[in-house]
Amino acid sequence: MAASAVPADPAAVIPAEARALFREGLATPTAGWSAGFTQANLIIVPRAQAFDVLLFATRNPKACPILGVLDAGETSGPLLAGGDIRSDVGRYTVYENGVLVAEPTDLADWWRPDLVTFIVGCSFTFEAALQEAGIAIAHIEQGTNVPMYRTNVRCAPAGALSGPLVVSMRPIPADRVADAVRITSHYPAVHGAPVHVGDPAALGIDLDRPDFGDAVVVRPGEVPVFWACGVTPQAAVMESRPTLAIGHAPGHMLITDARDSDYLVSPA
Amino acid sequence: MAASAVPADPAAVIPAEARALFREGLATPTAGWSAGFTQANLIIVPRAQAFDVLLFATRNPKACPILGVLDAGETSGPLLAGGDIRSDVGRYTVYENGVLVAEPTDLADWWRPDLVTFIVGCSFTFEAALQEAGIAIAHIEQGTNVPMYRTNVRCAPAGALSGPLVVSMRPIPADRVADAVRITSHYPAVHGAPVHVGDPAALGIDLDRPDFGDAVVVRPGEVPVFWACGVTPQAAVMESRPTLAIGHAPGHMLITDARDSDYLVSPA
Repeated sequence: MAASAVPADPAAVIPAEARALFREGLATPTAGWSAGFTQANLIIVPRAQAFDVLLFATRNPKACPILGVLDAGETSGPLLAGGDIRSDVGRYTVYENGVLVAEPTDLADWWRPDLVTFIVGCSFTFEAALQEAGIAIAHIEQGTNVPMYRTNVRCAPAGALSGPLVVSMRPIPADRVADAVRITSHYPAVHGAPVHVGDPAALGIDLDRPDFGDAVVVRPGEVPVFWACGVTPQAAVMESRPTLAIGHAPGHMLITDARDSDYLVSPA
Repeated sequence: MAASAVPADPAAVIPAEARALFREGLATPTAGWSAGFTQANLIIVPRAQAFDVLLFATRNPKACPILGVLDAGETSGPLLAGGDIRSDVGRYTVYENGVLVAEPTDLADWWRPDLVTFIVGCSFTFEAALQEAGIAIAHIEQGTNVPMYRTNVRCAPAGALSGPLVVSMRPIPADRVADAVRITSHYPAVHGAPVHVGDPAALGIDLDRPDFGDAVVVRPGEVPVFWACGVTPQAAVMESRPTLAIGHAPGHMLITDARDSDYLVSPA
């Protein structure tokens, strides 16, 4: 199918329209699309591995916040009303036995009726809240992908699944660190408060060498702040080498009908 | 084994000691035991049913807040350090094909290596916080079990599991309802804010006829306030009639090493 063009103002495109564009073949990173609506990570595994994935998420909720699950036989749900998980993401990653074998724009050649889809929260939600509070996000200003690092912290294992905690890093001015902690703590469903502030060496991290995404400069007066990252469950699933596992391509998120404000826990 | 005596001051007994007493055969309701420590519901099913139970909990988090999971082959974990889930609850309920067949004080005759244990939050945690705020709890003052009702609200189904939302009810003075909402909203891991305030008929409830527990009087000036109840997952599991399912006997909770304060989400 012919790929659609990127719309002039992606922020104004509602989620159902965005998913329709991706369904028609558009494949482009989704940062900045559908302002106010929640974007999500995907991890799709056969039913035989699904309990381990859901238990891993339950035991590591900051890294793996589950926003929704499509059980075997389900290809849509309330987070993508009228949509189809097999086509509504711009680009997917397909792993066989832990090896990346394809990056298709739909799953027509890969779908099986026993596949279970996990829709996992993404830090895009709290980045918008940080920006609204006047806290600049370095990788957004630079137009790059957030830097992500494998840490020396192990997640709680679940069955066949184990792996390192993966974190994302954002440099925050020292006098706004407390604000960044407070604001993100109100979004526990999308990674919540930071897991670590400053001292990258304690996590076994070299800031100049991200494992995923792009390095950003930490300027004088800024502190590197680390949040649990939604890549964590994908990293663990890949390590366990299931016969088949599917994710979204980096930056090509599922745009859901949920609003970022749905995940705000009000400090009543 | 000879049953131990109830200690003189159960509130002062630490969780590990409480579990040791139950392991030795004591069987008594745990309300008021181990002050400040978190008590929990149990639901234990074969691994073949475990994904459905965990997915049901994920889709109905207010009714089924998962505090911990012991996977197949695990009989202890960080919530019951040094303990044994097969013996450390005072009294269990055993269901075969959805029918109650035994209420043993340990699971020696019933345990199988494929059983998975779900440890589910309990409203005891937020009741203590309400009392600390000067809000009296009627069923505690009367020394009875909290009244619980099957509602006309259906839970989100998960695989073979479906069932009604079960709620607990506490009469709250009209001028403290807002406080009760605010306080319990800070404990999302143990049912959180009420699901319904006033108007029992809208839930299909006759206050005088609880489905579980004991009726309490709603006095003039008080409003019936309804919270999602940890009996909900047990009710759904029973309806699905697995070959074997095990719970705790009503009021005979698992006393964990977690503190109630661990589940307080601070309104920072």
